[in-house]
Amino acid sequence: MTGRHTVKAVVAYDGTDYQGFQRQTRGRGIQQILEQALSTALREPILIKAAGRTDAGVHALGQVISFATSSPIPPENYRRAVAHLLPKDIALREAENVPDTFHARFDAVDKTYRYEVDYSPLPDPCAQRYAWLIREEPSLEAMNEAAALLVGTHDFSAFQNHGSQETSPVRTMYEAHWDQVGNRYFFTIRGNGFLYRMVRNLVGCLVKVGTGKWSVADFAAVMASRDRKQAGMAAPACGLFLMHVSYPK
Amino acid sequence: MTGRHTVKAVVAYDGTDYQGFQRQTRGRGIQQILEQALSTALREPILIKAAGRTDAGVHALGQVISFATSSPIPPENYRRAVAHLLPKDIALREAENVPDTFHARFDAVDKTYRYEVDYSPLPDPCAQRYAWLIREEPSLEAMNEAAALLVGTHDFSAFQNHGSQETSPVRTMYEAHWDQVGNRYFFTIRGNGFLYRMVRNLVGCLVKVGTGKWSVADFAAVMASRDRKQAGMAAPACGLFLMHVSYPK
Repeated sequence: MTGRHTVKAVVAYDGTDYQGFQRQTRGRGIQQILEQALSTALREPILIKAAGRTDAGVHALGQVISFATSSPIPPENYRRAVAHLLPKDIALREAENVPDTFHARFDAVDKTYRYEVDYSPLPDPCAQRYAWLIREEPSLEAMNEAAALLVGTHDFSAFQNHGSQETSPVRTMYEAHWDQVGNRYFFTIRGNGFLYRMVRNLVGCLVKVGTGKWSVADFAAVMASRDRKQAGMAAPACGLFLMHVSYPK
Repeated sequence: MTGRHTVKAVVAYDGTDYQGFQRQTRGRGIQQILEQALSTALREPILIKAAGRTDAGVHALGQVISFATSSPIPPENYRRAVAHLLPKDIALREAENVPDTFHARFDAVDKTYRYEVDYSPLPDPCAQRYAWLIREEPSLEAMNEAAALLVGTHDFSAFQNHGSQETSPVRTMYEAHWDQVGNRYFFTIRGNGFLYRMVRNLVGCLVKVGTGKWSVADFAAVMASRDRKQAGMAAPACGLFLMHVSYPK
């Protein structure tokens, strides 16, 4: 393709050592590092837009970015072109040409997040990087009973932190469930949008249900209260992965 | 317990940033860091023996160490006593008093290792720390057919690297199988002892079978050859975990 055109790319990163996706005044942002690598590879200044601005310490396997470029390099060659320009914890997975009207954030129809919780009564230095380590064994059944209440269109104010610029706290969840493999619990949630800190706040509450501190009815009451103060502690960033962003076919 | 006595402890570590378990002339050894933390906590010089001397980059959830001490601190308090003295990637999990004749290495009756392989056609910065990333999808069935040949008493010379001080290349494997969870493949092997680099050499060969480069008969022929040159590349250290060491009841 010649002339100025728009590219959509899927990127993956281990967020442990970053201040989040966005450029920060202090610390390192993933956006900045991707922009530098793409600018070098494509030999022009590249400014990217992202589907979701993940927080400090949050990981991604399916973050989507878009940007305009005049580079003659075919997008299918971008992965190799930037691989040696990126640190080991950031990777470009796929890239393709899209219509110029495409916007990674505004065109997204749904996003899928995964959250990993590891039940480990003993310290586990190999699990703590990508999971929330808990010392009490959670009930998969209770967590799934509460998670099922999330599916559908609801006001999620109780799980929203201040600091977001969202106008409406109403979102639709298409899927919300837990799977278990050994001592590892995987929470999958797919929805048309997420409020600030929503997934981590939800997981904090669902684990309270799993470990018997709350009943499923308590969880439902917190959700209905629309009061963030009821929901308590957010789950740590390290267990959260942005897995996938969908766009209209 | 008063006076000089012997303690057995289970330790876990993320081996990524270490030169292996043993003290090295250059770089950091896990043994050294554990000895420093225990010496500080128990207020006397502590020298430890370990069940297995894991290589650089290899992880452990169930490494066993033993040492003599005169400290009056009860072993069940060691975990908390050393937690703040150890880096985030090393942990003492459990400790108990044992008879003075106990030796972590010579008394071990079997050891269990796990090796993780991740099938990821796209780069995955979050999987590479604890797994071998492969780009071709392996056949679980073929890998299990080959793994089954390992069970029993055999000469494992074909899978032994030079550099070991072992006298006999004959070992007995009680268990050797692969499990799959999504794109992640877990190899579990339990035996009365392992030759130098044996598990990583085995996994390198089993993945050749899984991806169709070798037949199960090829694998059997390599094993029977007792010739290390036939076996090819070892799997990388990052996927290997020492999971458990058993002792006589």
